[in-house]
Amino acid sequence: MSNEVRSLNEECGVFGVWGHEDANQITYFGLHSLQHRGQEGAGIVSNDEGTLIGYRGLGLLSDVFRKPEKIKKLTGNAAIGHVRYATAGSNGIDNIQPFLFDFYDAQFALAHNGNLTNATTLRNELEQDGAIFKSSSDSEVLMHLIRRSNADTLHEQVKEALNQVRGGFAYLLMTSDCMIAALDPNGFRPLSIGQMVNGAYVVASETCALDSVGAAFVRDVNPGEIVTISDEGLSIDVYTTDTKMAICSMEYIYFARPDSDICGINVHSARKRMGRQLARETSIAADMVIGVPNSSLSAASGYAEESGIPYEMGLVKNQYVARTFIQPTQALREQGVRMKLSAVKSVVRGKKIILVDDSIVRGTTSKHIVRLLKEAGAAEVHLRIASPPLKYPCFYGIDIQKQSELIAAHKSVEEMRAIIDVDSLSFLSETGLIDSIGLNLDASYSGLCMAYFNGDYPTPLYDYETEYLANLTAEK
Amino acid sequence: MSNEVRSLNEECGVFGVWGHEDANQITYFGLHSLQHRGQEGAGIVSNDEGTLIGYRGLGLLSDVFRKPEKIKKLTGNAAIGHVRYATAGSNGIDNIQPFLFDFYDAQFALAHNGNLTNATTLRNELEQDGAIFKSSSDSEVLMHLIRRSNADTLHEQVKEALNQVRGGFAYLLMTSDCMIAALDPNGFRPLSIGQMVNGAYVVASETCALDSVGAAFVRDVNPGEIVTISDEGLSIDVYTTDTKMAICSMEYIYFARPDSDICGINVHSARKRMGRQLARETSIAADMVIGVPNSSLSAASGYAEESGIPYEMGLVKNQYVARTFIQPTQALREQGVRMKLSAVKSVVRGKKIILVDDSIVRGTTSKHIVRLLKEAGAAEVHLRIASPPLKYPCFYGIDIQKQSELIAAHKSVEEMRAIIDVDSLSFLSETGLIDSIGLNLDASYSGLCMAYFNGDYPTPLYDYETEYLANLTAEK
Amino acid sequence: MSNEVRSLNEECGVFGVWGHEDANQITYFGLHSLQHRGQEGAGIVSNDEGTLIGYRGLGLLSDVFRKPEKIKKLTGNAAIGHVRYATAGSNGIDNIQPFLFDFYDAQFALAHNGNLTNATTLRNELEQDGAIFKSSSDSEVLMHLIRRSNADTLHEQVKEALNQVRGGFAYLLMTSDCMIAALDPNGFRPLSIGQMVNGAYVVASETCALDSVGAAFVRDVNPGEIVTISDEGLSIDVYTTDTKMAICSMEYIYFARPDSDICGINVHSARKRMGRQLARETSIAADMVIGVPNSSLSAASGYAEESGIPYEMGLVKNQYVARTFIQPTQALREQGVRMKLSAVKSVVRGKKIILVDDSIVRGTTSKHIVRLLKEAGAAEVHLRIASPPLKYPCFYGIDIQKQSELIAAHKSVEEMRAIIDVDSLSFLSETGLIDSIGLNLDASYSGLCMAYFNGDYPTPLYDYETEYLANLTAEK
Amino acid sequence: MSNEVRSLNEECGVFGVWGHEDANQITYFGLHSLQHRGQEGAGIVSNDEGTLIGYRGLGLLSDVFRKPEKIKKLTGNAAIGHVRYATAGSNGIDNIQPFLFDFYDAQFALAHNGNLTNATTLRNELEQDGAIFKSSSDSEVLMHLIRRSNADTLHEQVKEALNQVRGGFAYLLMTSDCMIAALDPNGFRPLSIGQMVNGAYVVASETCALDSVGAAFVRDVNPGEIVTISDEGLSIDVYTTDTKMAICSMEYIYFARPDSDICGINVHSARKRMGRQLARETSIAADMVIGVPNSSLSAASGYAEESGIPYEMGLVKNQYVARTFIQPTQALREQGVRMKLSAVKSVVRGKKIILVDDSIVRGTTSKHIVRLLKEAGAAEVHLRIASPPLKYPCFYGIDIQKQSELIAAHKSVEEMRAIIDVDSLSFLSETGLIDSIGLNLDASYSGLCMAYFNGDYPTPLYDYETEYLANLTAEK
Repeated sequence: MSNEVRSLNEECGVFGVWGHEDANQITYFGLHSLQHRGQEGAGIVSNDEGTLIGYRGLGLLSDVFRKPEKIKKLTGNAAIGHVRYATAGSNGIDNIQPFLFDFYDAQFALAHNGNLTNATTLRNELEQDGAIFKSSSDSEVLMHLIRRSNADTLHEQVKEALNQVRGGFAYLLMTSDCMIAALDPNGFRPLSIGQMVNGAYVVASETCALDSVGAAFVRDVNPGEIVTISDEGLSIDVYTTDTKMAICSMEYIYFARPDSDICGINVHSARKRMGRQLARETSIAADMVIGVPNSSLSAASGYAEESGIPYEMGLVKNQYVARTFIQPTQALREQGVRMKLSAVKSVVRGKKIILVDDSIVRGTTSKHIVRLLKEAGAAEVHLRIASPPLKYPCFYGIDIQKQSELIAAHKSVEEMRAIIDVDSLSFLSETGLIDSIGLNLDASYSGLCMAYFNGDYPTPLYDYETEYLANLTAEK
Repeated sequence: MSNEVRSLNEECGVFGVWGHEDANQITYFGLHSLQHRGQEGAGIVSNDEGTLIGYRGLGLLSDVFRKPEKIKKLTGNAAIGHVRYATAGSNGIDNIQPFLFDFYDAQFALAHNGNLTNATTLRNELEQDGAIFKSSSDSEVLMHLIRRSNADTLHEQVKEALNQVRGGFAYLLMTSDCMIAALDPNGFRPLSIGQMVNGAYVVASETCALDSVGAAFVRDVNPGEIVTISDEGLSIDVYTTDTKMAICSMEYIYFARPDSDICGINVHSARKRMGRQLARETSIAADMVIGVPNSSLSAASGYAEESGIPYEMGLVKNQYVARTFIQPTQALREQGVRMKLSAVKSVVRGKKIILVDDSIVRGTTSKHIVRLLKEAGAAEVHLRIASPPLKYPCFYGIDIQKQSELIAAHKSVEEMRAIIDVDSLSFLSETGLIDSIGLNLDASYSGLCMAYFNGDYPTPLYDYETEYLANLTAEK
Repeated sequence: MSNEVRSLNEECGVFGVWGHEDANQITYFGLHSLQHRGQEGAGIVSNDEGTLIGYRGLGLLSDVFRKPEKIKKLTGNAAIGHVRYATAGSNGIDNIQPFLFDFYDAQFALAHNGNLTNATTLRNELEQDGAIFKSSSDSEVLMHLIRRSNADTLHEQVKEALNQVRGGFAYLLMTSDCMIAALDPNGFRPLSIGQMVNGAYVVASETCALDSVGAAFVRDVNPGEIVTISDEGLSIDVYTTDTKMAICSMEYIYFARPDSDICGINVHSARKRMGRQLARETSIAADMVIGVPNSSLSAASGYAEESGIPYEMGLVKNQYVARTFIQPTQALREQGVRMKLSAVKSVVRGKKIILVDDSIVRGTTSKHIVRLLKEAGAAEVHLRIASPPLKYPCFYGIDIQKQSELIAAHKSVEEMRAIIDVDSLSFLSETGLIDSIGLNLDASYSGLCMAYFNGDYPTPLYDYETEYLANLTAEK
Repeated sequence: MSNEVRSLNEECGVFGVWGHEDANQITYFGLHSLQHRGQEGAGIVSNDEGTLIGYRGLGLLSDVFRKPEKIKKLTGNAAIGHVRYATAGSNGIDNIQPFLFDFYDAQFALAHNGNLTNATTLRNELEQDGAIFKSSSDSEVLMHLIRRSNADTLHEQVKEALNQVRGGFAYLLMTSDCMIAALDPNGFRPLSIGQMVNGAYVVASETCALDSVGAAFVRDVNPGEIVTISDEGLSIDVYTTDTKMAICSMEYIYFARPDSDICGINVHSARKRMGRQLARETSIAADMVIGVPNSSLSAASGYAEESGIPYEMGLVKNQYVARTFIQPTQALREQGVRMKLSAVKSVVRGKKIILVDDSIVRGTTSKHIVRLLKEAGAAEVHLRIASPPLKYPCFYGIDIQKQSELIAAHKSVEEMRAIIDVDSLSFLSETGLIDSIGLNLDASYSGLCMAYFNGDYPTPLYDYETEYLANLTAEK
């Protein structure tokens, strides 16, 4: 289901362009296609012949830049932008990116997608050494590290800084002279390079943003790489060779747009294969297959094709955003859910339904959807989840850090089935997921971060180690 | 495609509830599910023990009622609401409904979906007789007629007034004592009655609004009926027996929500049948069927099922509204289109595609979509339209009054094919459409208004007669 | 004291210009200088070659027209404008003037300063006859009367309508062809005509507005006159000869700007004479004279000059508006008063003070000011009021309609002195006021409305008669 | 004249309270009475049992805190606040104070009135050492110096930091445990301590703020002092003994509120003495004395009393703020001026006028006012300025840093007279000013900063030295 309904949130998308006279508008277009990666803040910094000019605000991109003059003021041939998902307690304007730093000798703009695992340690050390942070965001740490580096060139300073931060990060920096992109050693977050017809280079969190501005795909940024784009063109270096690809499997399952390719694999197609595999693993006779709109429609159509059971539109999503300000009485709460999703009575009445969803976080939304279908007259509802049970938090950039909220961390599949009140419940297997995505780097390694499902984090957790272990203990 | 992209617009939706302590919130929920019928203004008037309290504003419902206190102030056990599509030149706050009239001896609230064909004549006559209008809306005429009636009771006054107006109208009125609904003699616009668990009656433009508030469907309002709901319950009368059902076929084709039932026929199912019939009428070999999201997905899946050609997600709609304030340069215009819709390259590349859309108005959007698919690598695109060519304007409540803008009014199918730059183009036949909807009242009469396709208007056009004829002449 | 502090409020100011290409901006300037006459709403209607264009909003003029485009859209060579004081219960946008009426055969803009005494009767009669009002304002009645008139010309229709309304009114109308000003038969409200260098005519509630746009004073509009300004120039007619001048004495005492001339008498000078007369009537030895800023400064300086006692700045008014949203605790309430006015400790400490104020309404503000001075160390405070005690409500356009709120209506001067907690209290005599203003039309008639002080209303009270008598009875 | 009209602007006011449960509202009241010291931004930080909570925004205090919840959220028993005048190019939200700093081990709030003369040098040094600034304000420097200090206690760290900054500063800091006030070694800016009835301590830029919250005056903060207020009470220390009082003379002449006492001298009384002295120094026969409202009214009344010439209200200031968005045509520009100030024709017509103003900056406003009077019929206008000619910029916190804009820096008195187009022009002498203020610390030293008049800056100018000398050279 959509972001509005449940609490599984991507933390940000980045976009940058270098070498186009409409850099501000191109960045606006690019960010618009990345809006699903963060809806609580947006900003753009442009580069007008060496001078950086920024604007940022709370809310959707279209709200932040509602007045045309906001965009028009961001003149110049290069720009970077950011859409942000704000985690609780850090939702002030100060944390909206790109950060713009004005030094007596330089300007920097910084945008970050991901989450550092040693940010607290680094920040405390820096503050003990006199540093003052302008935000509560962990993204700002990198700037301090760069400015305190004693390396001779900016390029070396950035590399030195990148070697000090840990976790998941796709960084986009801009200075007077260049745009710099860098990816963490595990490539947790996607980051791609494209090129426009006029030669301008584009960097974006997803390839859908390249398409949206008419840029041709050049290549993905690889783990450990630092990419510099300037008037001299594109150059790629590595800041570390100690890398191991572990791209976030949730990007394929839920986050990324279906028209994006991640590591060369189309998201819609991967989801359709997940649906097909799910049908193979969890076969059941039924009258129809229904997907939860919009994110599960690909998987549902795959399930339908594989099973031969008709694919029907049994749920309709209201395309208008429902504000949640109304605190309904108990009697009205059910109606609140109906504002977002409706069951099509004439389609589902008396039918045995296979309901395909991409994942289950708390289980509350699933429960509501099932009730909608049953009230509309569905005879049976069999819930099929196109991914394995979510049991462990993410520390690399997705907002599911509280394990206590994950229903699968505490309940068996049968218990979940009973809570959600569904006739049967099955999940895709881990190997089924890996095979469906099909990234497999070699026979023995998936190339994916599967920690949400099995707790096998590809890196040490640093600042989160204690918290994580405490959670584990508390829950036993 | 969605309302944002093309200029085929419903003019309004109405909702009312009588007898529920949460009348304000229920009306909000109901209107939210009717938001697709009008996005440019919204309002609610509640009835607190005989005193009417109103609030209205420009924009989406969620914008108008952004502050919770706006809803909270609308206290009482009954309410009516309205979402409005503003036609050009009449988009001020004064025209947002429901209108609230304060007389020394009574209060009235009035909401209207439809378009009167003799409003100008009536208004001029009334003004000649000293009347002063508070809005430029034709909806207000009814109130003047009611107040000037010499009939003894309000009920008779309303009936007398209803017999003076012509055209398409679904009215919803509220006084201190009752809520009154009335439908025009041809039933051009849909209007349904529901009942909540506590016995409260609900009236709404579409049944999806009944579902959204958990109300059971009672019956549709019939042409020529006047329905009165008060603390004494529901009573139904007729103000005229000179009626002939002619429900707007575009409600089935494009406007209504797929989960609504109109005259007992589910919209999604009707669209799926249109798609099936379209496949039968316009068969062609291809690799996949793609629907234009979101309104054409039902027809596309019907086409796919009937033809046996796989249904694929080749186009992705951005779920975030793109503001159109940016006036892109020539070079950027193509990118503006891409903000709303993206082609999925990995799906369409090298493929022969059947593209299903519900209708063609100007043809410009179709042209853009086809180009998107071709640029993404589609080998062939065959456009199939799940309705006949739109050639004539509507005078009963849909904003396609300028015939000059309808491409099918001036071009042959082959000319359109060339303009849209598609490999082949076919439309559903009129009889195919009628059969797919399946309302057929008897063997010889479809029960539908098909004037958009064949110019056979079910009523005289009154004030529009001259304009209509002039258009016809000018275009020859 | 200023309007912010007490509840004695003028109801509106009007301004119009005919024949200047900057009509919109001139009207803005003119209204700005009349802002003290109404702060709760403002609007302007311009005339662009016969087409009327309007904009209005709630709040101060500068808030309503905060965006420059709001003014720019009001194109044309003529315009009328209005600033409004909203009485309780009628503060919606619908009541903001100028009203703009669109008829099939004409457009009208209407602005009104004053209060009709037979508005309710007229409105009820009109509604019984089918009329629908767009506002709750009594100003709209005139338009209905005009439109229902059977007279042959607009000029005669307006005259006929003017003869039906009663009370206090200064009307400003605009049509495609002309601007019409009219004053009630008693001339309760001021209204003046000016002319700009280019020949354009200007009409305004006060002459300060003529000065503010550089217009020369031509003459005042007289009671019973109807003034028509068009491209043919200025023409003056009378709609009634049954007139008797009774200009509101409170305009001189408190409302009007000191730089305005009303009926040829400068307001500042009149106030200074009131202060001089007050000194003669209520002499007392003291260390200094202090005026309550800003409206009483003229009277205070007159008092000081006449008495020979030094005039000092013992009270300072904060020039920034204090919003009253903060609901202070009991302990903070005193501090709330201090936000608006401060006593200058070093000036008043240990001193015997004569405090001059223009009038007393409820007495609460006076009490607060006296306490401020005493807390600042004043040894004695002798309050001198530059007008007689306010005992009766106004029905002609000033918001003091509730007699129960007037302290002087219920308390003796000694009782008031004790309540206000002042060492002595004296008022200017009625004859002292009349002589100070000096309008005296002849030896036996002041030419002023003095009803606030003596209850001698110059006209029957019509709709207010019963209410007025009931008040009188209730209070005995 | 008022701040709206000319470009002589105070840079900020500070207010703090410690030990009162209504700390947020008290700070709001206090800042409201300091609003004249800065209108372009405001903020408050409260201390709720050790946790600092802040809110700040652009615009007037009443705009920033328009919504009551903004104040309500600032809970706790202590608070500091700031009103800001934003110098050109630094008017973003980032620069609005108080600054709130969140460290892993502490929180700080910082508010500053004044201007540092070595801020650029310090900032560059700090940045070279890795510091990152969150604003472009020089106020932030102090925080970096404190955090980088190696002293053992916060108290010593602050003292160490204070000894590194140069120029004019009144600082107000708040931590979890205490509120700290500090004044520069010359006491350029005023800063006073008060105490409320409940024992709570208050610190404010002017004593009028103490009065506004009902606090008794305790004592002024002296040059070089650091004052600490905590739950243990008030303690005063010095961070330097190298001090020499040089309070800004412009505070007496123009900036401070007339009801404030600065260094024990009432501002209104000082201005009245300046007017008296001006009369003695520049005597001339005339019909009346008129002051430019509001800041020159005290001086004008002093002039009138001393000269025996009547004091009249010949100019009226519009109490409503005129927005300057309208870009008037040449023909309308004169009318723009009239929006702020009006001449009272009946008072000035045919009269010989002594016009008293407090100072002349560019001369353009004086020229406009003189024209107003002459157009209103004044026979002669003799301009008397209650301070010496302004020839030199201020570097300690007043925004007159561009010497090129000061008319008196480039023109003789006779040249100025001709430009302003006045019949005669005279200024108060320097000794006359010094004697009128009467601070004289000893026979040989005024205790005032008189640099604006004579260029004798009490300190080295550091970062401004070069700029200042360049100006001097360029102008010769």
